[in-house]
Amino acid sequence: MRRLKRITALKKVVFTENGFDGYLIFNSTNLLYFTGFSGATSLLVPADGESTLYVYGVNYEQAKSEAKGFRVELVKGNENLMAKIAKQTQERKAKKLAVDVLGVESWRALAKEFGAENTLAVNSSFVQALRKVKDKQEITLMRKAGELTSKGMEAASEAVKPGVKEYEVAAEIEYAMRKRGSGGTAFETIVASGPSSAFPHGGCSDREICSGDFVVVDIGSTYKYYCSDMTRTFVAGKPSAKQQKIYNIVKAAQEMAFKTIKASAAVSDVDGVARKVITDAGYGDYFVHRLGHGVGLEVHEPPTLGQFSPDLLAAGNVVTVEPGIYLPSFGGVRIEDTVLVKRNGAEKLTAGPYSLGHDY
Amino acid sequence: MRRLKRITALKKVVFTENGFDGYLIFNSTNLLYFTGFSGATSLLVPADGESTLYVYGVNYEQAKSEAKGFRVELVKGNENLMAKIAKQTQERKAKKLAVDVLGVESWRALAKEFGAENTLAVNSSFVQALRKVKDKQEITLMRKAGELTSKGMEAASEAVKPGVKEYEVAAEIEYAMRKRGSGGTAFETIVASGPSSAFPHGGCSDREICSGDFVVVDIGSTYKYYCSDMTRTFVAGKPSAKQQKIYNIVKAAQEMAFKTIKASAAVSDVDGVARKVITDAGYGDYFVHRLGHGVGLEVHEPPTLGQFSPDLLAAGNVVTVEPGIYLPSFGGVRIEDTVLVKRNGAEKLTAGPYSLGHDY
Repeated sequence: MRRLKRITALKKVVFTENGFDGYLIFNSTNLLYFTGFSGATSLLVPADGESTLYVYGVNYEQAKSEAKGFRVELVKGNENLMAKIAKQTQERKAKKLAVDVLGVESWRALAKEFGAENTLAVNSSFVQALRKVKDKQEITLMRKAGELTSKGMEAASEAVKPGVKEYEVAAEIEYAMRKRGSGGTAFETIVASGPSSAFPHGGCSDREICSGDFVVVDIGSTYKYYCSDMTRTFVAGKPSAKQQKIYNIVKAAQEMAFKTIKASAAVSDVDGVARKVITDAGYGDYFVHRLGHGVGLEVHEPPTLGQFSPDLLAAGNVVTVEPGIYLPSFGGVRIEDTVLVKRNGAEKLTAGPYSLGHDY
Repeated sequence: MRRLKRITALKKVVFTENGFDGYLIFNSTNLLYFTGFSGATSLLVPADGESTLYVYGVNYEQAKSEAKGFRVELVKGNENLMAKIAKQTQERKAKKLAVDVLGVESWRALAKEFGAENTLAVNSSFVQALRKVKDKQEITLMRKAGELTSKGMEAASEAVKPGVKEYEVAAEIEYAMRKRGSGGTAFETIVASGPSSAFPHGGCSDREICSGDFVVVDIGSTYKYYCSDMTRTFVAGKPSAKQQKIYNIVKAAQEMAFKTIKASAAVSDVDGVARKVITDAGYGDYFVHRLGHGVGLEVHEPPTLGQFSPDLLAAGNVVTVEPGIYLPSFGGVRIEDTVLVKRNGAEKLTAGPYSLGHDY
């Protein structure tokens, strides 16, 4: 019962270490993390006894079948959810409560039921601290997501050529991942050619790829809800000397940064290594984002690999390493892998050659 | 400048009708709605003068290129976003402020900068009221999203057969939509066969479809960010008498409800028509969800077609009509179209035969 182990770990953080006696989870990804079920509305974790999962009728039968080890409580369509939760929380004798994440309007409705807005703490970091260290099962699923994504990138390398539309490349990528068992895309596939390759989030349009274009392909498969994230940049045709030069700088930045990743490394140092390679080459102003971000049930989650973050890496973190250079109106290059942090190094969960195209 | 018309409409609601003199938008879909750009962090709309769009470096060049008519303000990675917004809001002389949507933790950080938690209102309904009435351009895009989704359903009707895995059917559906210009899926494709067809959100697994299974296929393409939503239920092979009977009830419920849709109809009445058909046939307890929901930039948005909602429909609403019957361990049927509400009736934006399979 891996899920219940996660509840035990949560109780240690929230109750033993932080003195609360009840925790309410509303964020849908957090609910999935703790229960394995994606259709619940809230989870009440009391200091003592069984946790209660609140589920509307539409998902009630499925919750009973899939969320093992939890009491599943039906919420009717005309019931006041917040009143129900408040009542049952009070019955469980929880007095010092925290909530994971909630919009202000919902939080006010809940606080009103407790009659105590100021004592209803909101703290998302308890769960973030757990989620950012992946367990064995999660790593297995993320490795599979990475393999599927790498297959998608192979399809991209074959599909990118002059005259093909960006979305047609996306179709081939997504089909290659999906027919091998992908659960879908972790985010909107980016196939950004020519001028839009200079935008880090250049999208995917009906533009026809032209000869000589940079084409940034940023993709991610999911596998059993876990995400992956990978970017390669191609040239449709023969790269110019300037294109090859920029590509080589980004490739060197990614390689150098990857080599510094291990448990206890400061994320700002890892970012700094990549940033220095690019800055020393004269393109520092054109690396306009952080080096990477955590990946898991969400494609963007803690920890951040950024120059202003105080965090240290830990074994079990999964992060992207994705330096880029973006030259307005000329085009851009980004190279990205999803990487598992280990005690003495790191392992790439996405794999594939680093080449502008022909040798891919 | 359709976007700026939307800002004008927002100002009328928030300032003229509700007495605020500043509105801050944080929700990413709301930002997309007003600016046409998906990568901003916040938008300050003051009562007088130009609106300011806050954008991090990663999306700054793209924002300047795509978000026409807005002042684009760069937020640096080490800047305090909330402090910056508060300062510039005060410079614009906005004193009675509202925010669209914000998590409690962010809202507290922002309120602290204003030194006035209690006077910082949070109101998401201002924008919802605008977004739920689609304009001409939105309807054109949603019609296209519906066409693509209907093509996906054609692919499903060909792919569903015994021995094929659920995710293999999803691969064919998504490829059919994507290669015709779909922007991706509006939600995770559902291909739920056999026992899991009895769960409204039965997912899409590696299960092989068996002869005689119900297969619920619930899919949606996006087109330029607009969503579509459509469900058909097939039988892999020859339907049993009981399967055909249940199917016919759901089909009748959908047809009858669709006929009652027009501007000024009460959503509870529309839901009630479908619910009565199913209840009269003896399956009322197995129609475990509301009849439908609004669709637009999000696949679930206002208005709800539910028995407990007081809302009336308006011309320009786009809603799903999706009755279902779910018999635990036997299987389930759902039939769904995305529908545009008009003055004197309704138009289906998704189209395709209603048949358990063979005549599709």
